[in-house]
Amino acid sequence: VCLEAGLAPRYRQVDLLGKRVLDDDTDFRAVSPSGCVPALALDDGTRLNEMSAVTMYLADQAPSSGLAPRPGDPARYRLQQWLSFVGTEIHKTFVFPTYRLQGTPEPVKAHARALLEPALAVLDRRFREAPHLVGESFTVADAYLAWTLALIRRAGVDVAPWRALAAYADRIRGRPSVHDAFATERAIAGL
Amino acid sequence: VCLEAGLAPRYRQVDLLGKRVLDDDTDFRAVSPSGCVPALALDDGTRLNEMSAVTMYLADQAPSSGLAPRPGDPARYRLQQWLSFVGTEIHKTFVFPTYRLQGTPEPVKAHARALLEPALAVLDRRFREAPHLVGESFTVADAYLAWTLALIRRAGVDVAPWRALAAYADRIRGRPSVHDAFATERAIAGL
Repeated sequence: VCLEAGLAPRYRQVDLLGKRVLDDDTDFRAVSPSGCVPALALDDGTRLNEMSAVTMYLADQAPSSGLAPRPGDPARYRLQQWLSFVGTEIHKTFVFPTYRLQGTPEPVKAHARALLEPALAVLDRRFREAPHLVGESFTVADAYLAWTLALIRRAGVDVAPWRALAAYADRIRGRPSVHDAFATERAIAGL
Repeated sequence: VCLEAGLAPRYRQVDLLGKRVLDDDTDFRAVSPSGCVPALALDDGTRLNEMSAVTMYLADQAPSSGLAPRPGDPARYRLQQWLSFVGTEIHKTFVFPTYRLQGTPEPVKAHARALLEPALAVLDRRFREAPHLVGESFTVADAYLAWTLALIRRAGVDVAPWRALAAYADRIRGRPSVHDAFATERAIAGL
């Protein structure tokens, strides 16, 4: 989202189990009361958590980017709907249990994988109607989905049977910001 | 939310397993492409899903209710944050697996219950700072949390150890709209 919006934040790594900020060994909960990522810290002291809130805030810093319909535009409800769908049906249902740092019992992981399939079918139906989640153009909901699709792929789930979704995944992966975001992440993580 | 906003929608029951609208036996997916509730159908043909999007839309129909900060108000990001937290850390993490119609394997339910505790601790810390999720006044995020707290209670989880959260739960239960909403639900369901 930052790359699409032309923003250059300072990224800081966190020990999510120990809840420490790595570069100065401070308490992560001072920035993120829930202890969750993402956490956005603004110069004025504002702290913001949760993917849907953080990405919409960032989008609004670059209104001409089209990353979010402007406040008051009814299409913004549609964006909220898809941010919530990706957050609950994909991220929390599958990505979170699959990649949880503390580990997840195998029966829970298998159950998560079974729940993923109907959600992928919903996305596939959507991409038979429109090129992006909200409609014609790329929004922060697509950025969020791009990240979850990369993790779904890394977990060995092949979305090829959902052909419209698979075509969307290919298109999104070809987007320079998506490529650069994963390169940035690898560089920060020293991978 | 409708009771707080002075709205009188027509409520329609759904067979969530068979994906049918009960009163006229039509396909629920015509209204809700994801097959999920809540689904809001407006007279102009607009269809909206997902709790955070539907509740914010309803709140905006009654701006003087204070149920949501107005579009463009920075406090709206805070509301989105809490709607997302309740949706992902409480509803999807615990309420959904606990009450899923198709049933959830016991190890998955036990895991869900273990994940609930840190989320309740986050809420407890929040209610030591402020009387409601966003701040001083009741918003749609509190309406969403009120519903999840009722289901948490029904599942036999006692929030008494989280004293600020327990006090909040008592206050919210005493709110006429919350009482009337559960009475409305019982009447519709014939309980």
